Amino acid sequence: MNILIQNGTILTMHKKKIIREGAIAIENQTIIDVGKTCVLKRKYGRGYEKIEAKGRLVISGLINTHQHAAMSLFRGYADDLPLKEWLEKWIWPIEQHMTAHEIYVGALLTAIESIMSGTTTVNTMYHYTPEENEAKAFADIGLRGVIGHVCFSWRKKEDRKALGDLARKWHNKAGGLVRISVDPHSPYTVDPEYMKELDEMRRKLNRKYGSKEAQIISHIHIAETNDEAEKIKQTFNVKVKDGMMTYLDSLKVLDEHLVAAHCVALTDKDVAIMRKRKVKVSHNPISNLKLASGISPVPKMLRAGITVSLGTDSPCSNNSADMFEVMKTAAILHKAISKNPTVTPAEQVLEMATIEGAKALSWEREIGSIEVGKKADLVIINLQKPHLCPLYNEASHLVYAAKGSDVETVIINGKIVMENRKLAKLSIGKVMNMAEKAKDKLLNRLDTNVK
Amino acid sequence: MNILIQNGTILTMHKKKIIREGAIAIENQTIIDVGKTCVLKRKYGRGYEKIEAKGRLVISGLINTHQHAAMSLFRGYADDLPLKEWLEKWIWPIEQHMTAHEIYVGALLTAIESIMSGTTTVNTMYHYTPEENEAKAFADIGLRGVIGHVCFSWRKKEDRKALGDLARKWHNKAGGLVRISVDPHSPYTVDPEYMKELDEMRRKLNRKYGSKEAQIISHIHIAETNDEAEKIKQTFNVKVKDGMMTYLDSLKVLDEHLVAAHCVALTDKDVAIMRKRKVKVSHNPISNLKLASGISPVPKMLRAGITVSLGTDSPCSNNSADMFEVMKTAAILHKAISKNPTVTPAEQVLEMATIEGAKALSWEREIGSIEVGKKADLVIINLQKPHLCPLYNEASHLVYAAKGSDVETVIINGKIVMENRKLAKLSIGKVMNMAEKAKDKLLNRLDTNVK
Repeated sequence: MNILIQNGTILTMHKKKIIREGAIAIENQTIIDVGKTCVLKRKYGRGYEKIEAKGRLVISGLINTHQHAAMSLFRGYADDLPLKEWLEKWIWPIEQHMTAHEIYVGALLTAIESIMSGTTTVNTMYHYTPEENEAKAFADIGLRGVIGHVCFSWRKKEDRKALGDLARKWHNKAGGLVRISVDPHSPYTVDPEYMKELDEMRRKLNRKYGSKEAQIISHIHIAETNDEAEKIKQTFNVKVKDGMMTYLDSLKVLDEHLVAAHCVALTDKDVAIMRKRKVKVSHNPISNLKLASGISPVPKMLRAGITVSLGTDSPCSNNSADMFEVMKTAAILHKAISKNPTVTPAEQVLEMATIEGAKALSWEREIGSIEVGKKADLVIINLQKPHLCPLYNEASHLVYAAKGSDVETVIINGKIVMENRKLAKLSIGKVMNMAEKAKDKLLNRLDTNVK
Repeated sequence: MNILIQNGTILTMHKKKIIREGAIAIENQTIIDVGKTCVLKRKYGRGYEKIEAKGRLVISGLINTHQHAAMSLFRGYADDLPLKEWLEKWIWPIEQHMTAHEIYVGALLTAIESIMSGTTTVNTMYHYTPEENEAKAFADIGLRGVIGHVCFSWRKKEDRKALGDLARKWHNKAGGLVRISVDPHSPYTVDPEYMKELDEMRRKLNRKYGSKEAQIISHIHIAETNDEAEKIKQTFNVKVKDGMMTYLDSLKVLDEHLVAAHCVALTDKDVAIMRKRKVKVSHNPISNLKLASGISPVPKMLRAGITVSLGTDSPCSNNSADMFEVMKTAAILHKAISKNPTVTPAEQVLEMATIEGAKALSWEREIGSIEVGKKADLVIINLQKPHLCPLYNEASHLVYAAKGSDVETVIINGKIVMENRKLAKLSIGKVMNMAEKAKDKLLNRLDTNVK
């Protein structure tokens, strides 16, 4: 399908260019032209579906670089608890009873929520199940994503099989919408040898199923809290001295294809090594605050030139998939912590949520900005709202005032997945019913098991 | 008008009572009954307009205890700047060119935004102008509010007149919707003698226009940043040693009718004095983060038994009037700062935004909870949204997952001011047009003046 979006204000995220009265021409999956409406509408007339964007902002779709999409089924199940109790008494017991279908339903729900709040790409880490899974959910709804399988030392055999299956079935599939990743859970749940093996496996799978353009990446939780060295000592009897990144570097597993989620408890040496190895960061401010993990030294990483992207984290630790909330929280939090209101300005935070997110996922050749030749992942935001009035500065409004609910229309990979807040492929009500039923079944199973 | 809200889940905010399949009967301004729908629908049949709340939450309207409503006209005008430059080069110069009409339009815009995101009472501090003003805006749209006039040492004569006019014309007016307050701007802009005079004036106005039930209160910025003692030394040559509250206490101006906005830079002595004098706090976490003011010791104040309510602060320092954002930010921020995920749990934060807000404004006899005899200030929230699915815990959803845009219907003082997101009294588009025009005129005037 060919589309011409016209008369909008376009924030390209490319060289900070803003085009007013702008238009974007799309053929199949790809942006083929970007410019003034008066010029483009003469070039792309018949055969182009017109989307009117007067009074609207057109932005590159938001990129959420840390999620556990299936966990939406536990949203609000347990909050305000000590971390250990939350995980051990609440989250892990219920997760044990999850079926492949429930993983699919949970991911579908998160996918819908993501699209409805302007996110077009989600990097998700969960358990891969062959029948139904997060990849299928994303493909079914038309959301772009990197689907990981999370690995633990205690289930190496299952992990190896899952990773092979996941890569074969899903890497660079669904019209290029879905890519896959190899996800060591964390340095305290994956022993040093297995960490090295997983790094090698990523390279091997990449040689077989990936390419320079479509890399299989890695995704890990790291330095989320400051007790990880202690946990590693207890679990693997390995002494970590200079910080978690320094430890991973000693295993030779750091490179530019690793997405490091959280990065709260970092040493200066860690930051220097991340810069050197070009490690990519997913900053999750809402989760870090809610779980009392701490505050990531984002301004320091940005000053070091490290790619810092943004993530929501799971629907249990946030409890929302809304990247507008994450942008605002990131923008304001680091001002107070740095005692400097000029850090993380709106324009920079918007980059973190778009082009820097694309870089974090090694996907910046195709997504993250509105440029000719890139995939058409576009979000149209209605500015005709009291809370976005009056208008002085688009970036300020997007980061400090806009809400996910201001998103009107979403295009992913050249396809309209939501138009005027109606999903193209599925009924919202149907998915919500599926989710409520899945929750009831899960709770019943948990209940039976406990008795 | 008589109304029966039926079949909703009612969070009463009174003794933590939640009523499922609940109903609320309203006669004129007042809640006359609360209970199960099956019981109430037999009692209140004919003559009651029915509002169906199946699949909805009914909560006591949110109370925003610190705003400068008129400033919505500057939303996004200047962000990410050092505080001094922001105020001196951007905000103050443009404010000098504001007319009474623009104050009215700005307040109207904030009032609409507030209602649309579930706020039913706003405590606002701005310049009172006799012709058009914030009080008129709130009355016109049907928003409950405390309207203050902000006082400075440099304009005592104007302030005295404005306060007298404001109290006479607006205290306990518009069917009881509007109350007024006496607002010393801050301890560094109001000299000690004037501070005492204003306190005396509040008492005098209260004797004349107020009552025990409808108090004229006071509202001040205090301890927003940690340089206030230094500013007081420089401006008034007064030495403040043990903290700002301790200083105000030495002037004998602290009591239970003072709303202290911000309270970031407090000493332990301050906290003890606030407790003793029953000073009320308006906590503004988003503004404090965005302006890099710091982080208020909220858990400490709560432990001391101090009433802590929530505020958005102005549309320039937030840039949103959405109390759902403030609730979430307050709930998560103090967990990370305290390194304790159990502080400020969802239920407590919901109280801060409702009943504690009512106490902060000395208005808890009439608002802040759903109880027989209180004014009907009610907000109906649609739970049928992907981001509120599945449902385990209503308070968790309200604080961590719900958005202002989930608010469907709002009743204030027994009147439906918004139904299914349509305002009863004014067209949203018309007010937005007024705001854009007001902004253009302001900028022209500023421009002419600069040239």
